[in-house]
Amino acid sequence: MSQPQIPANAFSLDPSDPLNDLRMSEKAKPLYEHVKRFIKETVDPMAVEYEKLGRNRADRWSYAPGQLELLDAAKAKAKAEGLWNFFLPDAETGEGLSNLDYAYIASELGKSPMASECMNCSAPDTGNMEVLERVGTPAQKAQWLEPLLKGEIRSAYAMTELHHASSDARNVATSAVLEGDEWVINGEKHYISGAGSPRCKILITMVRTSPDAPPHKQQSMILVPKDTPGVEIVGGQHVFAEDHAPHGHMHIRFNNVRVPASNMLLGEGRGFEISQLRLGPGRIHHCMRSIGAAEVALDLMVKRGLSRQAFGKQLVWLGGNVEIISRARIEIESMRLMVLKAAKAMDVLGNKEARLWVHMVKAMVPERVCKIIDQAIQMYGALGVSQHTPLAHMYSQQRTLRLADGPDEVHHMVVGRSEVRATEGAAEEMQGSMVWRS
Amino acid sequence: MSQPQIPANAFSLDPSDPLNDLRMSEKAKPLYEHVKRFIKETVDPMAVEYEKLGRNRADRWSYAPGQLELLDAAKAKAKAEGLWNFFLPDAETGEGLSNLDYAYIASELGKSPMASECMNCSAPDTGNMEVLERVGTPAQKAQWLEPLLKGEIRSAYAMTELHHASSDARNVATSAVLEGDEWVINGEKHYISGAGSPRCKILITMVRTSPDAPPHKQQSMILVPKDTPGVEIVGGQHVFAEDHAPHGHMHIRFNNVRVPASNMLLGEGRGFEISQLRLGPGRIHHCMRSIGAAEVALDLMVKRGLSRQAFGKQLVWLGGNVEIISRARIEIESMRLMVLKAAKAMDVLGNKEARLWVHMVKAMVPERVCKIIDQAIQMYGALGVSQHTPLAHMYSQQRTLRLADGPDEVHHMVVGRSEVRATEGAAEEMQGSMVWRS
Amino acid sequence: MSQPQIPANAFSLDPSDPLNDLRMSEKAKPLYEHVKRFIKETVDPMAVEYEKLGRNRADRWSYAPGQLELLDAAKAKAKAEGLWNFFLPDAETGEGLSNLDYAYIASELGKSPMASECMNCSAPDTGNMEVLERVGTPAQKAQWLEPLLKGEIRSAYAMTELHHASSDARNVATSAVLEGDEWVINGEKHYISGAGSPRCKILITMVRTSPDAPPHKQQSMILVPKDTPGVEIVGGQHVFAEDHAPHGHMHIRFNNVRVPASNMLLGEGRGFEISQLRLGPGRIHHCMRSIGAAEVALDLMVKRGLSRQAFGKQLVWLGGNVEIISRARIEIESMRLMVLKAAKAMDVLGNKEARLWVHMVKAMVPERVCKIIDQAIQMYGALGVSQHTPLAHMYSQQRTLRLADGPDEVHHMVVGRSEVRATEGAAEEMQGSMVWRS
Amino acid sequence: MSQPQIPANAFSLDPSDPLNDLRMSEKAKPLYEHVKRFIKETVDPMAVEYEKLGRNRADRWSYAPGQLELLDAAKAKAKAEGLWNFFLPDAETGEGLSNLDYAYIASELGKSPMASECMNCSAPDTGNMEVLERVGTPAQKAQWLEPLLKGEIRSAYAMTELHHASSDARNVATSAVLEGDEWVINGEKHYISGAGSPRCKILITMVRTSPDAPPHKQQSMILVPKDTPGVEIVGGQHVFAEDHAPHGHMHIRFNNVRVPASNMLLGEGRGFEISQLRLGPGRIHHCMRSIGAAEVALDLMVKRGLSRQAFGKQLVWLGGNVEIISRARIEIESMRLMVLKAAKAMDVLGNKEARLWVHMVKAMVPERVCKIIDQAIQMYGALGVSQHTPLAHMYSQQRTLRLADGPDEVHHMVVGRSEVRATEGAAEEMQGSMVWRS
Repeated sequence: MSQPQIPANAFSLDPSDPLNDLRMSEKAKPLYEHVKRFIKETVDPMAVEYEKLGRNRADRWSYAPGQLELLDAAKAKAKAEGLWNFFLPDAETGEGLSNLDYAYIASELGKSPMASECMNCSAPDTGNMEVLERVGTPAQKAQWLEPLLKGEIRSAYAMTELHHASSDARNVATSAVLEGDEWVINGEKHYISGAGSPRCKILITMVRTSPDAPPHKQQSMILVPKDTPGVEIVGGQHVFAEDHAPHGHMHIRFNNVRVPASNMLLGEGRGFEISQLRLGPGRIHHCMRSIGAAEVALDLMVKRGLSRQAFGKQLVWLGGNVEIISRARIEIESMRLMVLKAAKAMDVLGNKEARLWVHMVKAMVPERVCKIIDQAIQMYGALGVSQHTPLAHMYSQQRTLRLADGPDEVHHMVVGRSEVRATEGAAEEMQGSMVWRS
Repeated sequence: MSQPQIPANAFSLDPSDPLNDLRMSEKAKPLYEHVKRFIKETVDPMAVEYEKLGRNRADRWSYAPGQLELLDAAKAKAKAEGLWNFFLPDAETGEGLSNLDYAYIASELGKSPMASECMNCSAPDTGNMEVLERVGTPAQKAQWLEPLLKGEIRSAYAMTELHHASSDARNVATSAVLEGDEWVINGEKHYISGAGSPRCKILITMVRTSPDAPPHKQQSMILVPKDTPGVEIVGGQHVFAEDHAPHGHMHIRFNNVRVPASNMLLGEGRGFEISQLRLGPGRIHHCMRSIGAAEVALDLMVKRGLSRQAFGKQLVWLGGNVEIISRARIEIESMRLMVLKAAKAMDVLGNKEARLWVHMVKAMVPERVCKIIDQAIQMYGALGVSQHTPLAHMYSQQRTLRLADGPDEVHHMVVGRSEVRATEGAAEEMQGSMVWRS
Repeated sequence: MSQPQIPANAFSLDPSDPLNDLRMSEKAKPLYEHVKRFIKETVDPMAVEYEKLGRNRADRWSYAPGQLELLDAAKAKAKAEGLWNFFLPDAETGEGLSNLDYAYIASELGKSPMASECMNCSAPDTGNMEVLERVGTPAQKAQWLEPLLKGEIRSAYAMTELHHASSDARNVATSAVLEGDEWVINGEKHYISGAGSPRCKILITMVRTSPDAPPHKQQSMILVPKDTPGVEIVGGQHVFAEDHAPHGHMHIRFNNVRVPASNMLLGEGRGFEISQLRLGPGRIHHCMRSIGAAEVALDLMVKRGLSRQAFGKQLVWLGGNVEIISRARIEIESMRLMVLKAAKAMDVLGNKEARLWVHMVKAMVPERVCKIIDQAIQMYGALGVSQHTPLAHMYSQQRTLRLADGPDEVHHMVVGRSEVRATEGAAEEMQGSMVWRS
Repeated sequence: MSQPQIPANAFSLDPSDPLNDLRMSEKAKPLYEHVKRFIKETVDPMAVEYEKLGRNRADRWSYAPGQLELLDAAKAKAKAEGLWNFFLPDAETGEGLSNLDYAYIASELGKSPMASECMNCSAPDTGNMEVLERVGTPAQKAQWLEPLLKGEIRSAYAMTELHHASSDARNVATSAVLEGDEWVINGEKHYISGAGSPRCKILITMVRTSPDAPPHKQQSMILVPKDTPGVEIVGGQHVFAEDHAPHGHMHIRFNNVRVPASNMLLGEGRGFEISQLRLGPGRIHHCMRSIGAAEVALDLMVKRGLSRQAFGKQLVWLGGNVEIISRARIEIESMRLMVLKAAKAMDVLGNKEARLWVHMVKAMVPERVCKIIDQAIQMYGALGVSQHTPLAHMYSQQRTLRLADGPDEVHHMVVGRSEVRATEGAAEEMQGSMVWRS
């Protein structure tokens, strides 16, 4: 992960700055209500059916009969009702909402396991579409962005490697060498989320093309169709024993994989630059949805506490449970405001200048949501870790977010360093202000 | 502390609600800049002089020669420049700012130990003035509110009693009995902040007048001039060994203290009602200033980390210090947004409806600011607990806020209960939504 | 869970008390070394083979060809070498070690996923054998204890019910009614660990036999052979998506299950009494093994930190990682001493008098071990939650211990209440000792 | 602070090692009972009188009339009863107890503010006496050790400097230059505890004598009588606003202070070596006493919780208070065992080999005791931070221990590094043991 040049005054913002207007826009409001209704009336009942169908499928890496029909019907309905591709701010395509408006909506998407996909807002497609929309050539857009925007195919983002800390984006070993008008790719990626699905057709792949360039110019991003000869899906990797099939988190080998030179995105040596562009909104989308997950966990925690008795009392009134609930509510409201502010910062300042807010939110939200879910689990007893509540699955997802797109520690490093740098200039003045009494 | 009837939908607010517009108003902006300038140019240099003068005074409970002149000059300058009485929202007097605008300004006041007093915004006067402005009779206002608004006298709020948990406001033992047209008061109060100062002239005193009424109707608030015969200042109470003289935290006995019947505020049995009115903004003012204190602590922490070397490195780069700094910054920004939202809620919804936000902020802020100051102390070593940095004093102040106006636990109890109550109605629907897989 | 009458002086123990001699006995020392060697040379290599064989089995609830042969060979070797049934203190059978000696050995067992079973020390058999050894009739012992002690069969402990908080042991709904000389059992149990295995032959089942007796006398424990008609295995329940097949955590229905009257343990209405007997050592065995798990997690954490580079450094030297490692080591040594002390307390005082130590250890250990494993996961990145390190599995196990045999909260409740009760008598003297200065 | 070469097997100790016998010796048992009786019957009543006398003294840096008489009477009684100088293990003088026996006794001393001094076991005299006993010449012993052992004079340890991180002992700027047969000392020390007392006669002073030697050989320790010309007591430094007069924490300047060459301890360039010797037991003595302080805090917390009502209940039963109490008890028992083990390690292995245990205990105990005291404060409300309970004072003391003799961070650094180093050799073997499933 890079060390962005954070403007020294990142936090001494003018308090009447538009940054502090965290209201949803008037135009988004009916959409927001519509989304909530759609989830309740269409997505949630469909998800129940979908899950049932999936239980007995023979091959975990395919869909069960009937599953895709259910899903596609919901997607078609969403598209018809205009609930589609909200995530693309200021897009040429005319689609999308501001990051702030989307933050409100994404928080609702985060309450439902299938809502994002139904409205074509699920990771990693969102980040991939944003990359293609921002840096793709017209041909690349026609071939990949269009079907993605239509929800016809899915995609993956092949960046992480087993043997190198992916928190340091320069650590890429998968190589691409130009032979004639083809790039020849060799290497190995793992935890490539979504690459297991039969619908996943394209891998945006980080490769090292220019080992002699300066560290941030050695990497490139290149489009690799999943069915290219030499792309070998080694297997699915687990997250706390879940394989998340059929999407999965795949271990992939690239064995002399050849793609046309025109599959390069933006240009040789610009992979790191694209990764920065991509990670801002991508990271924050997860955090937006995490707010919704935290709301679900708190709601479940309280409901369990109300419906269960021990020692002659409802659990909720025993021991420190009321304080646990209060602290969860306070954390949720704090996180919500931070997510909204980061989204607004991206809208007002642009992704680059807003980056510090993104790092803060990424370092803050998943860790705290994990804690809230863990407390909900505790309230449920054994049921909390079972397949009969969504909590264990929710925990796995949030726990993984503390590792994905840079572990918490790296985000804290960026935020802390930026604070140090901003203070450094003023260090000389210390003596005066700190002495209370000589 | 009471159990307010929190509206069940307190958190499911319309996201385009004005509540989420946390911008300072245009009109307050120049004031805000003016306040920052005034603190830097006038208050801070004055405070250094003031502290020096105070060191050698013989009687800790009086002012040293020259101190009052310094203070009054700064107050006069502030008043002349219009930096005065910001805290009174929507006041008949025409003074004051919205709670939101004041929140921004109070955060600056919190960075400087004397700024609040210089601009006539210091506790407990602010809360007392608000009470008098809202419920005082014209005569009461003329006698006490006017000199308070002018900064000529100071006041105290005599509520806490030694032998009863003041978190439960009904626990008042100090009695007032009507004899003819006088109330005769007997009892004992402690930790009455500000009552030590020679300038403190009036005590708004919580008494029990109506022991046979329902629990919330037994108490009254009454104006007791400090020089009334029978008002005995027993002594000053410490906060981590500080006496905060001459303001102090006084132990006071009321020995057959007689005041005219007209000194009653609002009416017999309405003491609890007034305390509710008073506590909303009063609690939040402290928290607003705490944000400023946290900023100072973080700034000092980083500067120390930059200016000190150990093991061949600046302290700031050793161990987990960068992460500590990052976490402090994230907490500060979260708390700031929560305080702003609570202030806005009071502006938009009124103190009563906004009360849950106040409880959340009161339970959240002082605890976290204590932690940040504690970490700054750790970075300073022995100097951190000494009189040579402001940190130990700042810690004492924030630590005390975790006890004053209701301990953290009580605020969590209110927030948690409200969450439980809001969920309760929906408990029936649980079965459906929680089952992930049967 | 009961409210034991803790002796008021539980902590004011004579400091030269044998309780504080936490040394392993001389006789156990060679055994301890033998166990470590056996795990390294026999169990660990076998476990690798066993796991490989198990991957491709068609039916998760049976063993794969070759698995049982491997396991039985290791068990036979262990028995031949005298590494068998260590867990039974002061047993009539002549087997077993003191709790203290066993604590040292169990900590080693906890480092290896199959060591306990190989030496016939795995849950829930250990607790079940202890129950049978303590309260079984000669006939019950001959039928069930003997084959369990020989490792020929396995067992389960059917206590938890879906619809009642099992932290309150009186909450048992499964009924047993005497018809002639048979008990007829109806009800439903869940999370019955180990009941999935084809080798599991007997269920020690908690039933309600005496609804009109006082609350602690309504329950009984009864032996239910798993193949009795009417015992229906509904399915396996997950722990963070793991089914732990073939042992499993089974959902079981009892549909008019008939067992002979002689299957009753100890006597009608004595179920609660037996559960108390059983839970002391059973709880502590888990915690002993948890120490070993924590050692593995710390070892893995450090090794990963040494073998991985980011930003030009080994991970271990980045940020606060050295302090995380130090804190883990300090926690492990603290927990180890607490576990040893609790074991010694059971040896010296007996299970009943030592119960407070057991509660303390049960409330302390799994929570802290979870944290250490979680930090190890964080050091591994995505690999940490995958199937390629043991960490996710280890986390699930420890997380479950925070719920099993009483959730943390209940153990804290018992410890805290005991502290309050012990102090209560002395409350009168407070005034004198607490006043520092009047 | 140094980076000791910790033996790689520090934790893989033989479990039947005498290290794990944490029993007090038979010979110390009657002494232990005697000490408890003496504190209750003699010290505590004396301390109440002593405190009263001290309130009105004119000069904080002297004793009030009558104070010394009271104190000396108690000391004489202690000496006469053989309750004297327990702290010197294996001393030539024939005095002292083993570290383990002393740990039990010191925990009792820690419950009473004056017990240590009454039995001549108070810091910094204990560490200073140990240094003199171990490395003093016969003449040095006759002049300083004898009156210290008799309790006739007191001493200070002048190491910390304002402008250098004292966690890195090589950072000493105070210089000593040999002129003829005198050392001439110049420099500045601060936070020199105990140097304010009129009874303090000798300062063991860390100076830099050999700037050209290797880093650990540049410092020396030298005896500086407090009344030597040029020793200037600049003033007393506070700890959370307490000055701890008359002992104090003094700021001292050395202005051309001349002492005879024979005042050098052990030899030029051996200051660092002596500091290591001194810090082992010195650090652990504080931690032993901290256990007693934690016991007092927990006792006060529970008593307050029992004697105070709110919302119709005793505080102790409200919210999470029972769990807070349980966690405090668990922490206390864990810390006690760790302190005992560290003491035993010093007895069995010697100070040097036991150093890692000392670091662990020093990093663990004060931080956790602070938390327990803080929770007790919270239970008391405003009274908790006042002068009317001992809690605020106890907090200051424990908080300071987190900074003194190396801040927590440095101890964690040593423990963490040692763990890393011990693991390093084994890192090669990782691959095999960590892979759970390929």
